[in-house]
Amino acid sequence: MSDPADAAPPESRTVTMTPDELNELCESAVLAAGGSSELAQSLAASAVAADRRGKTQVGTAHLVDYLDALDAGRINGSAGPALTSRLPAAQHVDADSGTAQLAFDTGFEPFIGAADRLGVAMLSITNSYTAGELGHYADRIAQRGLVALVTSNSPALMSVYGAEAPVTGTNPLAFAVPHPEGPRFFDQASSETAWVNIRDAATHGADIPAGQALGPDGSPTTDAHEALAGALLPFGGVKGSNIALMVEFLASLGGGRFSLDAPSHAEGSESPGIGLTAIAISPEAFDPGYVDRVADHLDRLHRDFGIDFGRKRSCDVIEIPAEVHAALAHRR
Amino acid sequence: MSDPADAAPPESRTVTMTPDELNELCESAVLAAGGSSELAQSLAASAVAADRRGKTQVGTAHLVDYLDALDAGRINGSAGPALTSRLPAAQHVDADSGTAQLAFDTGFEPFIGAADRLGVAMLSITNSYTAGELGHYADRIAQRGLVALVTSNSPALMSVYGAEAPVTGTNPLAFAVPHPEGPRFFDQASSETAWVNIRDAATHGADIPAGQALGPDGSPTTDAHEALAGALLPFGGVKGSNIALMVEFLASLGGGRFSLDAPSHAEGSESPGIGLTAIAISPEAFDPGYVDRVADHLDRLHRDFGIDFGRKRSCDVIEIPAEVHAALAHRR
Repeated sequence: MSDPADAAPPESRTVTMTPDELNELCESAVLAAGGSSELAQSLAASAVAADRRGKTQVGTAHLVDYLDALDAGRINGSAGPALTSRLPAAQHVDADSGTAQLAFDTGFEPFIGAADRLGVAMLSITNSYTAGELGHYADRIAQRGLVALVTSNSPALMSVYGAEAPVTGTNPLAFAVPHPEGPRFFDQASSETAWVNIRDAATHGADIPAGQALGPDGSPTTDAHEALAGALLPFGGVKGSNIALMVEFLASLGGGRFSLDAPSHAEGSESPGIGLTAIAISPEAFDPGYVDRVADHLDRLHRDFGIDFGRKRSCDVIEIPAEVHAALAHRR
Repeated sequence: MSDPADAAPPESRTVTMTPDELNELCESAVLAAGGSSELAQSLAASAVAADRRGKTQVGTAHLVDYLDALDAGRINGSAGPALTSRLPAAQHVDADSGTAQLAFDTGFEPFIGAADRLGVAMLSITNSYTAGELGHYADRIAQRGLVALVTSNSPALMSVYGAEAPVTGTNPLAFAVPHPEGPRFFDQASSETAWVNIRDAATHGADIPAGQALGPDGSPTTDAHEALAGALLPFGGVKGSNIALMVEFLASLGGGRFSLDAPSHAEGSESPGIGLTAIAISPEAFDPGYVDRVADHLDRLHRDFGIDFGRKRSCDVIEIPAEVHAALAHRR
């Protein structure tokens, strides 16, 4: 581990850690914030996986939000997720005002087993906090040889169809296909840009590009502070708005709150109570040659068109921002 | 039925028909082009449903393309779709170089039954012609009380991720939720605009807006003729490109050809051999109150935000362009 007080200027200070070191740091921080050991393991694993892909903003940096939410009671640190299954291909987990990560762990093996046995299965989570890196869920499903589609909603931050105020969350969608060298997947918000990019612009006094947000009066703005008081805009206009509402209606299938009804993930003492839905498909049930066909097609897309769909790195050395390291370390 | 030779100027001549009259006209045309009675019923029903929603371009106007394809052998008029099921939630139909519509009819009841019995089911079609109005498939699933997600690919016409040449079809996605007043759904291409809009601009010598297409050299163009020789562009940039490839990888799960490998739907004598995949989800398996919650939420979106998500008309009087009427009628 390098020393964050090394000579680099403040804005570029990082701490270098192995995945195991970072995992231990994350687990300790969650335990110190009152989380159960199951919650600590679950959150640490998902945060480290995101950081290994270079997605610190939805990894360890976002874990700091979870610690604050544990303090305030927006996450139930001792949640005991309850798994039920009304029908064979339908797995349902009530997250007990805890996290989607632990609820997903609770339902994961029955869900994968149902997909293997029946050809398709769905896991729907309700009553949870915001989901973190959605690609992590899709990746885990595809690591088991299954095609994965995962959706999650979040408290309302985004206008759709030109509405003047927020209607949905940034409502991410993740999709993964199995591949001999590891799953290929994407994970994207339904917004034109991430909320954290607006917040960062506001922090640094910078403007934001046109087309990303509305101000509090519902008119387009490039002022980051106005945008934070207003609404994000969806990617792709009406078509992107359709994707955002599709995500909303899939994510809430298990009983999760619609974005408009979800308390903030950053304020107050109540769980957002939102949902996450994952679909797993066994390609062998439809076409035994599918995974090889997809791998050949992805090779062709790369060779002939320069397209590198969904390939992810997973680094064995992680650099996290010094302030994130400090926020986690001071909890111990 | 009004007379298409009435006084209206040529560009606005239409023929007014009831759904039954139009259905009979469509069935006769398919039979006259060598289609089986099963194929005639299936194609007529889907074309009329599209026309009743005002979507003639993917309804009766598109049926004319099917007649040409029957003539040329790109559609096998006597196809006998073969239904198989390797696992209980997995229904698979080989369309036998016929149409996705007839293949869907063949698999529909077992597919719906599996979703009702298991909670989730998937129907994947391979070896078919282009699918027509994708919303029709989603609507039929949601009319049975199930949430529907339907994808289909098509021969390569569209660049993704900035590639200089076509990589995918316009790859549509449809999503439907059940509603007490009839399903709410959307059906959208992954392209910024429909190919027929480019063709119409070329026919009328008009330019197309920027951002819709590339020319044959891979650079952006507003010339409709150059666009027809080049590639459409996806909606929403990289995020829309991700949606287009997700659609491609879902649609081909049953063994359907990737867009790059699919012969043209408009030329030659070979079936495009592409795929269509539909997922049906029983909301009662996850949250018995779901359909009512969604209806209340849609009421709120309309009342408070002016959003009218997925509401469809279904007209009892249909006006079809005189030239489409003539193309169907001369077959009888």
